[in-house]
Amino acid sequence: MATADLFQKITALTDADGDNGHIRVYIDSNASIPDRTAAILYGGEDPVPAMTDSLRKLESCGADCIIMPCNTAHYFLPRLVERSKAPFVSMIGAAAGACRRRFPGKTAAILATKGTLSAGLYQKALEAQGVPFLVPDEWEQECLMEVIYQGVKAGAPPERYREAFFSVTEGMARRGAECFLLACTELPLAARALGADLPCVDPTEELAKAAIRFCGCAVRGE
Amino acid sequence: MATADLFQKITALTDADGDNGHIRVYIDSNASIPDRTAAILYGGEDPVPAMTDSLRKLESCGADCIIMPCNTAHYFLPRLVERSKAPFVSMIGAAAGACRRRFPGKTAAILATKGTLSAGLYQKALEAQGVPFLVPDEWEQECLMEVIYQGVKAGAPPERYREAFFSVTEGMARRGAECFLLACTELPLAARALGADLPCVDPTEELAKAAIRFCGCAVRGE
Repeated sequence: MATADLFQKITALTDADGDNGHIRVYIDSNASIPDRTAAILYGGEDPVPAMTDSLRKLESCGADCIIMPCNTAHYFLPRLVERSKAPFVSMIGAAAGACRRRFPGKTAAILATKGTLSAGLYQKALEAQGVPFLVPDEWEQECLMEVIYQGVKAGAPPERYREAFFSVTEGMARRGAECFLLACTELPLAARALGADLPCVDPTEELAKAAIRFCGCAVRGE
Repeated sequence: MATADLFQKITALTDADGDNGHIRVYIDSNASIPDRTAAILYGGEDPVPAMTDSLRKLESCGADCIIMPCNTAHYFLPRLVERSKAPFVSMIGAAAGACRRRFPGKTAAILATKGTLSAGLYQKALEAQGVPFLVPDEWEQECLMEVIYQGVKAGAPPERYREAFFSVTEGMARRGAECFLLACTELPLAARALGADLPCVDPTEELAKAAIRFCGCAVRGE
């Protein structure tokens, strides 16, 4: 569903006035790629071989750049870059830049999987951009994993994960968070399903915009 | 956007309780394939070479069946079937079958492009299923082309095509239509954007369900 969300955002955000203004998009949606968080934290199966298989397929279709709608997967980006002929456009870089531009001087809360948090993917990227940030405490991390895995990935109705989601955002706002980086692709879907009205950055949307620009098209409204 | 809609529907309608229950989906979204209606009616460029290029790419990825989220494109299906190693699941067949099962004995209005209507794609399929039907008159066909091309494909706000859309459905209902076959992939998007509350069959949704079943998965809610 995260891949469908990215594809929908690329289409909606391309400034085209008919079919012909759109970018050609190749997708390999392989939900059987081993879980990224499990690989980073618990010695789970290495996802790089399955990711490399997708990479080869997209390259042979003729892709000029590669994008991955999974924040946690970016932990493996250095290994994938070595294996790829086409350049990657990084979701992490695009989203960290958007935090700085859209919420200058504000403190960002990083809402992400345990894998993304433990690897420090966004901590490093935000530091490089000079953006102050907060990370969820241990209990908040459990809540986020519940929203992501038992909620969105399981196709559960939003009411099942409403309390878990808002307990995290309210707790982090009390500790000083001024904007929310929805740094797992399931979280913008959760926020939309819950009608959450928060100052936030959606890395899926920022990746869509970065890919549109990479392909030489204009972003709608810019 | 029609392809994004199909992909989203495949994901939402697969009865999976986590990532691993989902089908692997390969997509080649090439909005530069020559316009199908122009080729059928006005001697426009033949889209089959570009469609064959997509077919080869999807085959080389390893697709077990091929689906096309464009009703009008099914005019070219016999030529594509000849060129394909993998079987096609037909959107027209899936949608005509759904009309019979969901609205038994009712008269269906075929809302489609001039190309689809002139080729008789749905007329033949509904006849084969014993479903009575109505086609739009010439003025209604103009209205539908406006909704599709100047409306949805151009990314226009729904208010621009509200009148054109409802003048067709109201006119056809007065002539005896009891359900609406939204037989161009832009029309379910238009109906949703307009909040249209009509008894209708969405061929994109029926194609998603047929593809899920073809791949041996269960459809959510069935």
